[in-house]
Amino acid sequence: MTSAWLLPEHLADVLPSEARRIEDLRRRLLDTARSHGYELVMPPLVEHLDSLLSGTGEALDLQTFKLVDQLSGRMLGLRADTTPQVARIDAHLLNREGLSRLCYCGPVLHTRPGAPGAGRELLQFGAELYGHAGLEADLEIHDLALDGLAALGIDGAVLDLADARLMRGLMAGVLCEPAQIEAIYAALAGKDAAGLREASAGLPAEVRAGLAALVQLYGDEAVLDDAARALPERPLIRAALADLRRLAGHARRTHAGVRVGFDLADLSGFAYYSGPRFAVYAPGASDALLRGGRYDEVGAIFGRNRPAVGFSTDLKALAAQAGASGRRTAIRAPWGEDSALREAVRSLREQGETVVCLLPGHEHETQEFACDREVVAVDGQWIVRAL
Amino acid sequence: MTSAWLLPEHLADVLPSEARRIEDLRRRLLDTARSHGYELVMPPLVEHLDSLLSGTGEALDLQTFKLVDQLSGRMLGLRADTTPQVARIDAHLLNREGLSRLCYCGPVLHTRPGAPGAGRELLQFGAELYGHAGLEADLEIHDLALDGLAALGIDGAVLDLADARLMRGLMAGVLCEPAQIEAIYAALAGKDAAGLREASAGLPAEVRAGLAALVQLYGDEAVLDDAARALPERPLIRAALADLRRLAGHARRTHAGVRVGFDLADLSGFAYYSGPRFAVYAPGASDALLRGGRYDEVGAIFGRNRPAVGFSTDLKALAAQAGASGRRTAIRAPWGEDSALREAVRSLREQGETVVCLLPGHEHETQEFACDREVVAVDGQWIVRAL
Repeated sequence: MTSAWLLPEHLADVLPSEARRIEDLRRRLLDTARSHGYELVMPPLVEHLDSLLSGTGEALDLQTFKLVDQLSGRMLGLRADTTPQVARIDAHLLNREGLSRLCYCGPVLHTRPGAPGAGRELLQFGAELYGHAGLEADLEIHDLALDGLAALGIDGAVLDLADARLMRGLMAGVLCEPAQIEAIYAALAGKDAAGLREASAGLPAEVRAGLAALVQLYGDEAVLDDAARALPERPLIRAALADLRRLAGHARRTHAGVRVGFDLADLSGFAYYSGPRFAVYAPGASDALLRGGRYDEVGAIFGRNRPAVGFSTDLKALAAQAGASGRRTAIRAPWGEDSALREAVRSLREQGETVVCLLPGHEHETQEFACDREVVAVDGQWIVRAL
Repeated sequence: MTSAWLLPEHLADVLPSEARRIEDLRRRLLDTARSHGYELVMPPLVEHLDSLLSGTGEALDLQTFKLVDQLSGRMLGLRADTTPQVARIDAHLLNREGLSRLCYCGPVLHTRPGAPGAGRELLQFGAELYGHAGLEADLEIHDLALDGLAALGIDGAVLDLADARLMRGLMAGVLCEPAQIEAIYAALAGKDAAGLREASAGLPAEVRAGLAALVQLYGDEAVLDDAARALPERPLIRAALADLRRLAGHARRTHAGVRVGFDLADLSGFAYYSGPRFAVYAPGASDALLRGGRYDEVGAIFGRNRPAVGFSTDLKALAAQAGASGRRTAIRAPWGEDSALREAVRSLREQGETVVCLLPGHEHETQEFACDREVVAVDGQWIVRAL
């Protein structure tokens, strides 16, 4: 038992100064979501494995810790993502005719780190808008995501846009083996032009040319013109490019400080998304701070296939970007049963001050809280004075 | 898959109106703890089983979901209680010479409901004070617990006091089998006088008489005088009764609205506590809202056996007691790219208002948010007017 205090790999305690920052970010994001009309829900941490993994693909399955429910003998999963749970709530518990605007904030666990340097326990915040198929819903979700990051004081963010319909449009009508599709996606994700040529061998020339073009289609808005020239003229592709142009224009108008970029071959989470997708990067961060987009099929397994747009982010990763919040100072007070002293301390606390009472025998300790004032008795009155 | 939306037994989604109330309580408790100088920590949800269960007894073991860590092959536990984790943080990560005041708020999971009607996922809030053996630390923790409940607007609370040293003092020097000890505790917990006589057969007459008295020792402060007469004159017992008297007097002085009672045979969590214990009941609630006390041995397994006092509570149970918080009203606004409209909406949101934009095709829906005002254009100006 000498190692009882060692934590498992890629799991860590969050200590006071970081915990304070995360709690602060949490409140600001929840308040921003609320000001946009998004209602908070709290799904359970564990639920039946088949509900958690419905329609989400193998990647999430491997990321999900499994448990046995001793009450039922069924397999439970410890959620690795909250989106399927919120889709279930929209489909069954709320079951509204009209729109649902929902947000959530809670831990998710991964069996293995999702990326190099990532932890296995994230504090996931997200928002979802159900029931609207129009681009206005995408625009609203972009606004909320960018307003949320602005509320955290994250400057210089880059909004990266893509659209799942480009690949769908390009591959429409093409018959190929799942293994070949996987190889194509892997080569695209790695921007591996040679690998892509090999993986797409045997496909129609138009499709091969489109795939080869996709690898190069990243950068500023000129990319959209390049895409219109390089990709075949098909309705899904045309709609995707028009929507991307409108999304980019909107973000530039409403969030002047945000740079907009495109990475049309970005396919992370491709099993999930059905339309426009976005990611927000902060300067100097290697992974996206926030990812989202349209995933219209997410509620299908719960018997309610309706339009959905949303995003999610990890507050622990955000806290690393958001910079230190000011260290709050505190007031120290002597310990005592004197009712006037107690009243003075209570009143200061009600005003939002932190008052640390010095317990007998510990009067001279350094506290974590930086005490810059103290409560002292002067002429029979308890007053606060600077230290 | 027709039942993909069914949750496991005793697990539930928290839907918007309740989630809003829980989030509100959460902030008020964390702010109260902070105003008392308690620093927030966030231990991971899962960690090595032997760390989670160190020194806590079999009950917590059976309550803890087990997982295999595929990275190490070791057993992990999904925490069923946060206290052992916070003790670990105090002992190893902070490792301060002086006092540590820590608080936490996060989910805990139980394999089975802890009480009839209870859920399996609690949102546990708690606070712990490490490093002070004096009664002043107990008094500070009582203050924090009662101030926290007052901040939630819970009136008519009853503070129930007990002390683990009464049983320790009574049983000191008595040799008996673990099975007999268990039978005695079970009879005491059930206030079963006949069962207690049977279970204590063969013990010294003084101990048997003390146990028989203990079952009757509940009620108001007169109980302490009865206890002084009925229990043997031993240092641990004398100290416990003196401390209980002081704790009761303090609570009455500092929290005039709180009734103080005693239940000296209350032994729930006896494996844990080493000194004064307390529970707070609300009128009409069958189970305690909050439990705490002194558990000086809790850090021993982590190599640092230092004094500790604390309490914990379940925010979901508290939310059921705290009454409905006012339903916040909202403002509805038309959807549009007009920059003056966008500016008007942004400014209202920054003032803390909820503004719901009506997406095209959904202008006439009833929203969950009660919209009592709307943004409209009058003479080319966007203004807010009552509905």
